[in-house]
Amino acid sequence: MKHTYVADVLASNELHQEFTVKGWVRSFRANQFLALNDGSTINNIQCVVDFENTDSELLKRITVGAAVSITGILEESQGGGQRVEIKAKNIIIEGDADPEDVKLTILSPKRHTLEKLREQAHLRVRTNTFGAIMRLRHKLSFGIHQYFNNNGFYQAHTPIITGSDAEGAGEMFQVTALDLNNPPKTEDGAIDYSKDFFGKETNLTVSGQLEAETFALGLGKVYTFGPTFRAENSNTSRHLAEFWMVEPEVAFNDLDDNMDLAEDFIKYVINYVLEHCDDDLAFLEDRQVQEDKSKPQAERATMRLRDKLKFIVDNDFKRVSYTEAIDILRNSKPNKKKKFKYPINEWGADLQSEHERFLVEKHFECPVILFDYPANIKAFYMRLNEDGKTVRAMDVLFPGIGEMVGGSQREERLDILKEKMSALDISHEELSWYLDTRKFGTCTHSGFGLGFERLVLFVTGMTNIRDVIPYPRFPGNAEF
Amino acid sequence: MKHTYVADVLASNELHQEFTVKGWVRSFRANQFLALNDGSTINNIQCVVDFENTDSELLKRITVGAAVSITGILEESQGGGQRVEIKAKNIIIEGDADPEDVKLTILSPKRHTLEKLREQAHLRVRTNTFGAIMRLRHKLSFGIHQYFNNNGFYQAHTPIITGSDAEGAGEMFQVTALDLNNPPKTEDGAIDYSKDFFGKETNLTVSGQLEAETFALGLGKVYTFGPTFRAENSNTSRHLAEFWMVEPEVAFNDLDDNMDLAEDFIKYVINYVLEHCDDDLAFLEDRQVQEDKSKPQAERATMRLRDKLKFIVDNDFKRVSYTEAIDILRNSKPNKKKKFKYPINEWGADLQSEHERFLVEKHFECPVILFDYPANIKAFYMRLNEDGKTVRAMDVLFPGIGEMVGGSQREERLDILKEKMSALDISHEELSWYLDTRKFGTCTHSGFGLGFERLVLFVTGMTNIRDVIPYPRFPGNAEF
Repeated sequence: MKHTYVADVLASNELHQEFTVKGWVRSFRANQFLALNDGSTINNIQCVVDFENTDSELLKRITVGAAVSITGILEESQGGGQRVEIKAKNIIIEGDADPEDVKLTILSPKRHTLEKLREQAHLRVRTNTFGAIMRLRHKLSFGIHQYFNNNGFYQAHTPIITGSDAEGAGEMFQVTALDLNNPPKTEDGAIDYSKDFFGKETNLTVSGQLEAETFALGLGKVYTFGPTFRAENSNTSRHLAEFWMVEPEVAFNDLDDNMDLAEDFIKYVINYVLEHCDDDLAFLEDRQVQEDKSKPQAERATMRLRDKLKFIVDNDFKRVSYTEAIDILRNSKPNKKKKFKYPINEWGADLQSEHERFLVEKHFECPVILFDYPANIKAFYMRLNEDGKTVRAMDVLFPGIGEMVGGSQREERLDILKEKMSALDISHEELSWYLDTRKFGTCTHSGFGLGFERLVLFVTGMTNIRDVIPYPRFPGNAEF
Repeated sequence: MKHTYVADVLASNELHQEFTVKGWVRSFRANQFLALNDGSTINNIQCVVDFENTDSELLKRITVGAAVSITGILEESQGGGQRVEIKAKNIIIEGDADPEDVKLTILSPKRHTLEKLREQAHLRVRTNTFGAIMRLRHKLSFGIHQYFNNNGFYQAHTPIITGSDAEGAGEMFQVTALDLNNPPKTEDGAIDYSKDFFGKETNLTVSGQLEAETFALGLGKVYTFGPTFRAENSNTSRHLAEFWMVEPEVAFNDLDDNMDLAEDFIKYVINYVLEHCDDDLAFLEDRQVQEDKSKPQAERATMRLRDKLKFIVDNDFKRVSYTEAIDILRNSKPNKKKKFKYPINEWGADLQSEHERFLVEKHFECPVILFDYPANIKAFYMRLNEDGKTVRAMDVLFPGIGEMVGGSQREERLDILKEKMSALDISHEELSWYLDTRKFGTCTHSGFGLGFERLVLFVTGMTNIRDVIPYPRFPGNAEF
């Protein structure tokens, strides 16, 4: 007999009918009440075991973590806490879980720290918290694909291995197929990369933007959604060496269109999970409330999780130029009272996390889009404004997260782009393919990058980025 | 004024209304008929230029490849070939394209070889053929996400950088952040990877399967869809060093369920593009017919492209055991006439491409699922049958493509899995996390991998895998 997923059984109205469910035992009380979970939902189905008529050897094997198959009749539940339950008629143990072994793992039925969960990352998907996070991660991911597909975008699978190191977004990992203990050498003793797999030195991509631009200037609206890499020794709760990035790029969009797109996109995706993941969000919301009880007032969440998400969906993001932001910061209380680690004295200063957080969390109390940054603190490909000193850059800043999105209108004028590259010593030769897009029917275009894990952090209310990706990679860790 | 995408203008019934379109000039006949494309569809919008009242300097700048913005009135078209056209009132050149420069590129309006397109991969998205392929690639990708989401699967973003080399699916690329011209060494002169970024030697993943299994045994139904890598020196039209793979994994599914899933999944996705990409498919179908005219009869497609796709959707895949297949092959004409390069003499032989093609293209003339292969030609994690010599493996073979899918029911019994690993010298220690899944509530489960580019090849009717991915990576090539 085909089995039914727990999510479907819990939603079923077919009382008095026979169902088979398969999953893992989450608890077994009084030799009678078996809570079964199969990952399809955070909720368990209660299976009532007729312990008087069940073999005692079998009963002993119904332990937390064991995989079981249960066939029985769906009935209205007499107890509180669930609408329906299954009166078990037949129980098959698919796979045992020795209680002595389980005791040593995060599968054991007690509260475990997130640190402990990270150490046993191969088992943590079977916990309520991480299971909820991974279901939400999927729905966010699907919502992203659906948003772009609905709006006429095409996904561009830009390359992961790149021969270019001109993207300038950070330190890169090198990729090689050479035998490093005995590499081929050139006459002057350096490694001879002409003999490597690709005939030259190659790295892992830090961004698909430049390739996405070549696609946008042909297909019109494109996006990337794939892994990107940074070989930076950042051992923090906000950085990963391997993370997923979403990068839309749109021909004929200027910076205003780009801001509209970012805001509309983020709201759609957050609304998508509000509509599709209420059980998991409710669980995480409750978890946050419990966690906050042991925190000092200042560190507690100011809004409940779902209220926070609804607030984002329902309110306009505040759009503020860099110049306005500098004025606000210069005249702010923390600046005057010298509370900022990096005081804001003059126009041109690069904004630090403390400044972004002040603007978002204290001053505006909503997501903020900062735009028109000084040219010299931003990347070469951003479009120079008529003032000659600012570029059409934008950052979307979120409470508790900081930079969620970074983007810009791109410099579409070949001569200015070349000048900026020369000034930064970026080889025209190496990026000749990129320059070609400005030679053959160049046009206004813009795009942005969204760090996917930061979105998952915000939506789940988690605080450590290592808790929102299956197997995090960071300095010293490439386990599993 | 906001502009409208060409796909929407072509579908519009708002005659006599004003529209602005933006895109690139595909052709400009008689100083009057401008064919504009913006990537939203393979079709162009015809814009009729009032050349008598248009500045002659402007007219000169309307050249193939130029980016233009055109505002005008939508009217029924008098000429053949299109339902509607735009009577241009205002034309703005967004970006010029010097005809002398364009002449040297694949943007020039004549037939270019696919080889030539590959050399200018940064421009080929602006050709009809590659544009159609990339739109189809996106729709296939979206169809895949939609199929899994609709069916209760969760995407697992399994890691790209892996510390394990036990997956055994092929040669791996190494990832490092060491300075290779001056690497740290251990006392015995080898490279000291304990000083590398992750504290050990790391590689690019060849498959997310093992990690996906840990997720399936908790979330129930999961899939991966991401880049995978092979450092194999295969300079063929069927291999890439970097390609995208789809890997579903399902708890409580046996091999029959796995075959059902693969067949249902492939049919859904192919049907999805039949329903959503008719224009692009029609173009590629026509292209194939034209190409076939210069080919010998034996190399021509036996069915038209869309008929071939409909045939897949409408017909059952033939399921044949390896043992039956060997019988068929042993008694086949080509075997008896010694036409196979690798004659089939006995049970246990590994099937070569020529055998798979005979079964699919000559014998059954439909997709074939081969199952229950000899254990010793398959991977360690496949479930051993009761006969002790075959495993619950399956390959889905497609005409013209060969292996589209490879999968299996997984060995869920801890003791047998350990035995098989030991026999192959695979470290239990290194895969202890994988073995844990068999220790804590193990269960029947299965999954498969589908090479995404092979699916794109099949659906587009293309024959070289380098023509169905934005920027192909292969030996000697990591350009763009």
